Amino acid sequence: MPGGHEQTLRPFLWRAETLYEDTEVVSRTHDGIERYTYDEYSDRTAQLAGALTEAGIEEGDRVATFCWNHHRHFETYFAVPTIGAQLHTINPLLPDEHIRFIVQNAEDRTIFVDHSLFGKLAGALADADDEFDSVDRLVTMGEGVPEGAADLPIDVVAYEAFIDGHPTEYNWPDVDEDQPAGMCYTSGTTGMPKGVEYTHKMLWSHTMATLTPQGIPMADDDVVMPVVPMFHVNAWGMPFTATAGGAKHVYPGPSPEPEDIASLIEEEGVTVTAGVPTVWMGLQDYMEDNEVDLSTLDTVIVGGSAAPEAMIRWFDDHDVELLHAWGMTEMSPIGSVSHLKSDLEDADYETQLDRRAKQGLTVPGIEFKVVDDDGNEVPHDGDAFGELHVRGPWVTKEYFQRPEANEEDFEDGWLQTGDIVTVDTDGYLQIVDRAKDVIKSGGEWISSVELENAIMAHEDVAEATVIGVPHEKWQERPVAFVVPGAEADESTLDREVLDMLREDYPKWWLPDDVVYIDEVPKTATGKFSKKDLRDEYADQSLGGEVPEEAAPSESDD
Amino acid sequence: MPGGHEQTLRPFLWRAETLYEDTEVVSRTHDGIERYTYDEYSDRTAQLAGALTEAGIEEGDRVATFCWNHHRHFETYFAVPTIGAQLHTINPLLPDEHIRFIVQNAEDRTIFVDHSLFGKLAGALADADDEFDSVDRLVTMGEGVPEGAADLPIDVVAYEAFIDGHPTEYNWPDVDEDQPAGMCYTSGTTGMPKGVEYTHKMLWSHTMATLTPQGIPMADDDVVMPVVPMFHVNAWGMPFTATAGGAKHVYPGPSPEPEDIASLIEEEGVTVTAGVPTVWMGLQDYMEDNEVDLSTLDTVIVGGSAAPEAMIRWFDDHDVELLHAWGMTEMSPIGSVSHLKSDLEDADYETQLDRRAKQGLTVPGIEFKVVDDDGNEVPHDGDAFGELHVRGPWVTKEYFQRPEANEEDFEDGWLQTGDIVTVDTDGYLQIVDRAKDVIKSGGEWISSVELENAIMAHEDVAEATVIGVPHEKWQERPVAFVVPGAEADESTLDREVLDMLREDYPKWWLPDDVVYIDEVPKTATGKFSKKDLRDEYADQSLGGEVPEEAAPSESDD
Repeated sequence: MPGGHEQTLRPFLWRAETLYEDTEVVSRTHDGIERYTYDEYSDRTAQLAGALTEAGIEEGDRVATFCWNHHRHFETYFAVPTIGAQLHTINPLLPDEHIRFIVQNAEDRTIFVDHSLFGKLAGALADADDEFDSVDRLVTMGEGVPEGAADLPIDVVAYEAFIDGHPTEYNWPDVDEDQPAGMCYTSGTTGMPKGVEYTHKMLWSHTMATLTPQGIPMADDDVVMPVVPMFHVNAWGMPFTATAGGAKHVYPGPSPEPEDIASLIEEEGVTVTAGVPTVWMGLQDYMEDNEVDLSTLDTVIVGGSAAPEAMIRWFDDHDVELLHAWGMTEMSPIGSVSHLKSDLEDADYETQLDRRAKQGLTVPGIEFKVVDDDGNEVPHDGDAFGELHVRGPWVTKEYFQRPEANEEDFEDGWLQTGDIVTVDTDGYLQIVDRAKDVIKSGGEWISSVELENAIMAHEDVAEATVIGVPHEKWQERPVAFVVPGAEADESTLDREVLDMLREDYPKWWLPDDVVYIDEVPKTATGKFSKKDLRDEYADQSLGGEVPEEAAPSESDD
Repeated sequence: MPGGHEQTLRPFLWRAETLYEDTEVVSRTHDGIERYTYDEYSDRTAQLAGALTEAGIEEGDRVATFCWNHHRHFETYFAVPTIGAQLHTINPLLPDEHIRFIVQNAEDRTIFVDHSLFGKLAGALADADDEFDSVDRLVTMGEGVPEGAADLPIDVVAYEAFIDGHPTEYNWPDVDEDQPAGMCYTSGTTGMPKGVEYTHKMLWSHTMATLTPQGIPMADDDVVMPVVPMFHVNAWGMPFTATAGGAKHVYPGPSPEPEDIASLIEEEGVTVTAGVPTVWMGLQDYMEDNEVDLSTLDTVIVGGSAAPEAMIRWFDDHDVELLHAWGMTEMSPIGSVSHLKSDLEDADYETQLDRRAKQGLTVPGIEFKVVDDDGNEVPHDGDAFGELHVRGPWVTKEYFQRPEANEEDFEDGWLQTGDIVTVDTDGYLQIVDRAKDVIKSGGEWISSVELENAIMAHEDVAEATVIGVPHEKWQERPVAFVVPGAEADESTLDREVLDMLREDYPKWWLPDDVVYIDEVPKTATGKFSKKDLRDEYADQSLGGEVPEEAAPSESDD
């Protein structure tokens, strides 16, 4: 077999330390800004590898982190996988019960933990009957150990003491590209989180693909600041991509406030940054009262949830390109990026905005198909929708030890994303609903999200959600649940809402009923919980008098 | 195993036909310019796949091409590998004997051949005792078959007839990423060519890596014209990279002259092109008498042999970036590209030129080491040199059926390139000699190429070459062979040459002798043949009176 060397992470770091030894890694910590070079990063990563090896960590062992974004966390990113162990980044914002579950499920042996998160982790794990299970050591990120460390039944050691004295060279082993290098749990809205493992080959592929112009390109003149947490799918892979590209790294540390982000952009000359929309709303608010120099900033990557068009406009006004990216924990995570196609460069601004606000164009290496209930592919016309299925070298083929979930979410090598999407004639993907929320009426699908957004545009509607209610003839029909605003006239609001919808949507999309409620039930994290409403209405099957417009007719097509 | 889908070529074409169906593929042929879209390219590729399948080509079969750069050749690039067969691109400029050898060695079953090359191929193969061996079909690129086709003992069919009537959809199989997709023979300076096989995974990796900003990035606003022949390591991979990036393709057809290249750049709006220095010298000459608009052109990739600094300056003057790239057939082929590092952006122009004229910075994913005779790595100081060893996912691990060459050229997964290089403090690689030509004196190495270039700078030297002659104490010592110019005074020229070298080089670099000759022996392709001189001087071992400066002394360091 003519071959080619294994696709592992180590050569990315080798390249950075060989070509860019003086390029900086900058980190905001509780003690202020810390900075060093790739040269020192490389030395400390070797020391950490030595410390882990001496502590008995072997190939295949799982080592976890419970940390914000900083240089020590970044050191674990290369040190752990390149000795053949597996880095499991835990989301410290999860409920204790989930944290405990995933540490047990992953059988983590050592956990690196921030001082500020130490109490949270110790609390979550100390509930255990069997005293921390697999975990035999906590390494606290910094110089000393936090108060209370001595009370724990396992070793607690300070990071700097842990790596101190180990050589700055390490005899890196040849690691198999199929060896899992990383791990992250999806925070499922129902049930316990599901683990996704990332092999070296998956992370290598993801790094290369996101480095392309079709992804999130980075070069040695870039200064890259991931605001997206390093516990969220490797901060969307940016620490690896920035290293492969030889860029300067900036890590914003624990719970960065808008003023921290603003000051790091200004002082470190950040060119590329990334985070969820909330982060940038915070920056927008902050800049209403504070002057911030964004002149070095070229690109803001927004993902996690959709960026409003107004946010794209706002960054355009500040001469910064907002790039919408879409991905999933199962995809390492990037699947598509909303670059403007070159043949749209002469289109009017509103058309451009429309495309840029979508989830984007798939990056090279990813394939997708959009299928209806019968498994047939739907046309790319911007209207037809179906479930998005994806595959590619950095898309996982299974969940960790969850055969029942695998059965549900994977088919013939394709990941069934659970997202309902359209694809327009330019090839832009747009998520219109989640598969479990889409309303199936007469063999056709209605987007609950689209109806909700339309209803909430009514000035007298405070909140609204739309669910599919079982229907004996049409399978499901939409019902809208509306929280009237303070000024609303409830005797007319339901009709007004329906009249408004009638202007933009075919008749068969109109809800069969508009029900007033006091508030939309919410999940623990504040999202609308349609499940509760569905449970309540599951038995109240609609039926009997069914208007002809409950299914699409020719005239609606 | 969490997995990830196979790394194969098909998704690159899928992306192009899905997102860029209207983007063009343009081709210069004997009949003028032909143009169509990715949509039609995709249809014709499916037809070709159908035709090959009906003709009995199966997974693992080798299908060869004997063609210049045009759209039909590009159709074979995706059709052959994506049905699981292997595309063997034959260099039609090779001697008949080599062509015959590699067709036999590769056991090619079908060969696609240009009309203009039909006679050459038929002649080369018809010498066989056993009538074309494995080959059972020639497909001639175009509408009809050339004269003389009927005389051959095998089927000859016209390309358009071959694909005609086959469906424009093909049920593409899932191909294993380790299946060889391509094949190319190195034109070794000694002995028969050695075959290099490219698996899907190697070509996938190479495509991704060259698509990055550190490689030769391409996007949907690019117009890409490979002048480098498609029989030279897949035209440096550009047909694949341009497809993955969604760029427009321009193929310059058979034997393009400078005016053809100039007119394609102007008329098609070429942004990226690539070729050996000779091609660009031709363009430079042509532009002395002809006005050519290069305003769309951003980048010229130069490889194959070193681009002179003057050529870099010339393109700079025309606002075009000349990017020096280095690679090998064994590397699919790109290993490094001479991008200017961002910290050199403020350096003076001469410093920048110095770096840009080197072989460049390794692209992400490639690792190298530079080792001396004892296998120790040499410092990256721009002076020390050693043999370059490389490895990476797109570097082959063996030659096709050549165990003796494998023994010589591969060690522990590293390809021993046979190139003697320096690495400067910025990390730029520079090739200073071939391993077989470097002179080993007293445990240290002397670059024959550097001495030759220095000697040829003397105004009275017409040609010069330097070889290592066996020496009983110092192992080897340099001897210069000089062809005096018409005005030379042979009684002083040898001393003048040595005095000139003394100014720039340590004493132990100075040739022990300067020998006048009438001409430097040349190989069939016009390169200096040191082998003949070495054979002649092999027995004339130097020795006896040895100056102290025949090896480096402390003061020289």
